[in-house]
Amino acid sequence: MDNKTNNEILRSLKLASRELRLKDSSYRKKVLLDLACIIDEQRSEIVIANQKDILAAEKNNLSSAMIDRLLLDDKRIDSMINSVNEIANYGDILGSIIQQKQHSQGFMIYKTTVSIGVIFVIYESRPNVTIDTAALAIKSGNAILLKGGKEASFSNRALVECIYKALIKNSYPKSGVHLLDSSNREEINYFLKADKYIDLVIPRGGEGLVNAVVSNSTIPVIKHYKGVCHIYVEKTADLTMAQNIIVNAKCQRPGVCNAVETILIDDEIAENFLPQLCSILEASGVEIRGDKSCQNICPQIITATEEDWSAEYLDLILSIKIVKGLSDAANHIEEFGSHHSDSIISSDESVINQFFSLIDSAVVYSNASTRFTDGGEFGLGAEVGISTDKIHARGPMGIEGLTTYKWVVRGSGNIRD
Amino acid sequence: MDNKTNNEILRSLKLASRELRLKDSSYRKKVLLDLACIIDEQRSEIVIANQKDILAAEKNNLSSAMIDRLLLDDKRIDSMINSVNEIANYGDILGSIIQQKQHSQGFMIYKTTVSIGVIFVIYESRPNVTIDTAALAIKSGNAILLKGGKEASFSNRALVECIYKALIKNSYPKSGVHLLDSSNREEINYFLKADKYIDLVIPRGGEGLVNAVVSNSTIPVIKHYKGVCHIYVEKTADLTMAQNIIVNAKCQRPGVCNAVETILIDDEIAENFLPQLCSILEASGVEIRGDKSCQNICPQIITATEEDWSAEYLDLILSIKIVKGLSDAANHIEEFGSHHSDSIISSDESVINQFFSLIDSAVVYSNASTRFTDGGEFGLGAEVGISTDKIHARGPMGIEGLTTYKWVVRGSGNIRD
Repeated sequence: MDNKTNNEILRSLKLASRELRLKDSSYRKKVLLDLACIIDEQRSEIVIANQKDILAAEKNNLSSAMIDRLLLDDKRIDSMINSVNEIANYGDILGSIIQQKQHSQGFMIYKTTVSIGVIFVIYESRPNVTIDTAALAIKSGNAILLKGGKEASFSNRALVECIYKALIKNSYPKSGVHLLDSSNREEINYFLKADKYIDLVIPRGGEGLVNAVVSNSTIPVIKHYKGVCHIYVEKTADLTMAQNIIVNAKCQRPGVCNAVETILIDDEIAENFLPQLCSILEASGVEIRGDKSCQNICPQIITATEEDWSAEYLDLILSIKIVKGLSDAANHIEEFGSHHSDSIISSDESVINQFFSLIDSAVVYSNASTRFTDGGEFGLGAEVGISTDKIHARGPMGIEGLTTYKWVVRGSGNIRD
Repeated sequence: MDNKTNNEILRSLKLASRELRLKDSSYRKKVLLDLACIIDEQRSEIVIANQKDILAAEKNNLSSAMIDRLLLDDKRIDSMINSVNEIANYGDILGSIIQQKQHSQGFMIYKTTVSIGVIFVIYESRPNVTIDTAALAIKSGNAILLKGGKEASFSNRALVECIYKALIKNSYPKSGVHLLDSSNREEINYFLKADKYIDLVIPRGGEGLVNAVVSNSTIPVIKHYKGVCHIYVEKTADLTMAQNIIVNAKCQRPGVCNAVETILIDDEIAENFLPQLCSILEASGVEIRGDKSCQNICPQIITATEEDWSAEYLDLILSIKIVKGLSDAANHIEEFGSHHSDSIISSDESVINQFFSLIDSAVVYSNASTRFTDGGEFGLGAEVGISTDKIHARGPMGIEGLTTYKWVVRGSGNIRD
């Protein structure tokens, strides 16, 4: 790591972002293709660095789930390499004309895609985020300031060394990618107020991290907040379909933000549906917490507290509530959800359309699992994460979300009347 | 005005925004057409209320420019009515499919335009902003909280009464439009932290207002900041064209944000161009402030201080600097500009393209006046203002800027592998 002062880091990032505006797409692609090769060559260095993080994590008694998130093995390194190659080969979107208009005086006005400038990404644990995020930033022509988790610091440094090798090989401005070493809160806050240099902050992590960033930043923030996803089983639902979707959405990968956390069931079908749902979920090891009406049907269900309705369990736990139709379901989702991904299981098109209008979430589904909320599944290439914000980027946030536009006007001496 | 507590105001706005999601475009259009008629009927009430503001302004010794901005006469009321009719008749964009993708399992993913929810607009002096902003919010299906200038409070209240009449006539949720009466800073800060209820804040006004909002808000902010616009006269410029454009950009309406504030002239042409430019500007009553090199050519030029380079004069004052080519000009604009609108006068296509890449502003021009930066001139309908932010909306911000999108996924029992 360079031993620069914070102000020098900021100035260098800004200058790098200016240099990048003049580079064309083949240059950005070449840097990324080289990066993929360099990660491959540096496997042993990456694994050695990662082992230091793993040892420290074991010493600090981190949970096995946390340690698993930290781990980089050959398979995970392969998947990082694939991701970088995919980003490299994704179509270039900088300089595209999104809209064009002719003024009554005859000259043209073009709305054109451009990079944002300098982006600050704050994230936790998984070291592959370092590579994915830096690769997306390079592809979209942005300079990037990375702040990873302390527990992954050896791994992140080894990965950033790979990035530097690829940058230097291509005379890419090296200061266009910077990994912050500090975990000092005051220092982080210094960067969160540097609105003269940083154009966008993206916090990815727990509620505490996101709230701290939002409260302290004078820079625009796009929040990647928790996923409290719902599935609403409407009275006309195909119940076998409902059951399959719920099991998939809860059990296939419970530790991610697009897993379902709460099931809402119409009261007209609850007596029929709930016992069969409980028995299959219990067989999959899921702990069920429900309201009084649920317990009346299945007495073994644990009582859900007020906190359960807004909990992101990230685990084999599920809350269930019985509701009186669409409006009751929509009120619950709007009150307790996190505006991430919500699904309705129904065979009534008009109810489905009302659900789509009423639910103010990044992704609304009918008759499908919430687990599809993902940049790859949506055909957007890799993603920085899932935005739960409504401004600029919503849901899976890929290369497009890291660009903005400017208006370009080509005149021939035009003055305003 | 209702005598609601602040929390009640927020809850009502949120509920109104939910109700609005189920209404179709003909409904929004009808409310606006009625509003235009009601403003016409209420002319005398509006003028009486406005006179109270004017009297108070005179008593408080406000400048004649400020008093002129406050004034509502028949001509200005006509122009408000026209603006509301134009917004009413603008094409509806809610519910449009921006992008659609087919998943490999065969189901469809739609990226669909939706309203943002609840928007808080803070602005100063001109009362027509109350009508324009509320009309844009109604058209885009958003609930709106308005905070106008204290000096326009009688006028704003009379205009909001017109809006309420139109809302009530159409059973539109009346609490979807609310004018805040208070100018208490603590109270404003309470609303700026209400991120559970408000989705977006738009401050329009002086630097102090915008900075105070940015520092205190936990809600996403889109800044409408000052316009320090530049015209760079490159060495290959048609000098007659340059002169006409500069005079238009400075003198046609000096008090607006898209008027030019600084001229940069290539040193190779300065000796020839500067004297003719000065004489025509001086004839138009413009005070010129310049650097040492300017004074060497035209000794009558006043010395520009460091503050001049970032000043938004909003007056018949202009700063001029002599630069050594494109890179020097670009560095000056990036250092001192406000990323609003900047123009190059040149006949060299390759220099023009480099200028477009290097200058990180909402609007970049070649051979045209900066005065064109305007929603109407850009064919976007009315505007909330000119965003100097890079996230979400950039430059003239119209109906489109008040919408976001959600992803709608229609499955048939799909689960993730």
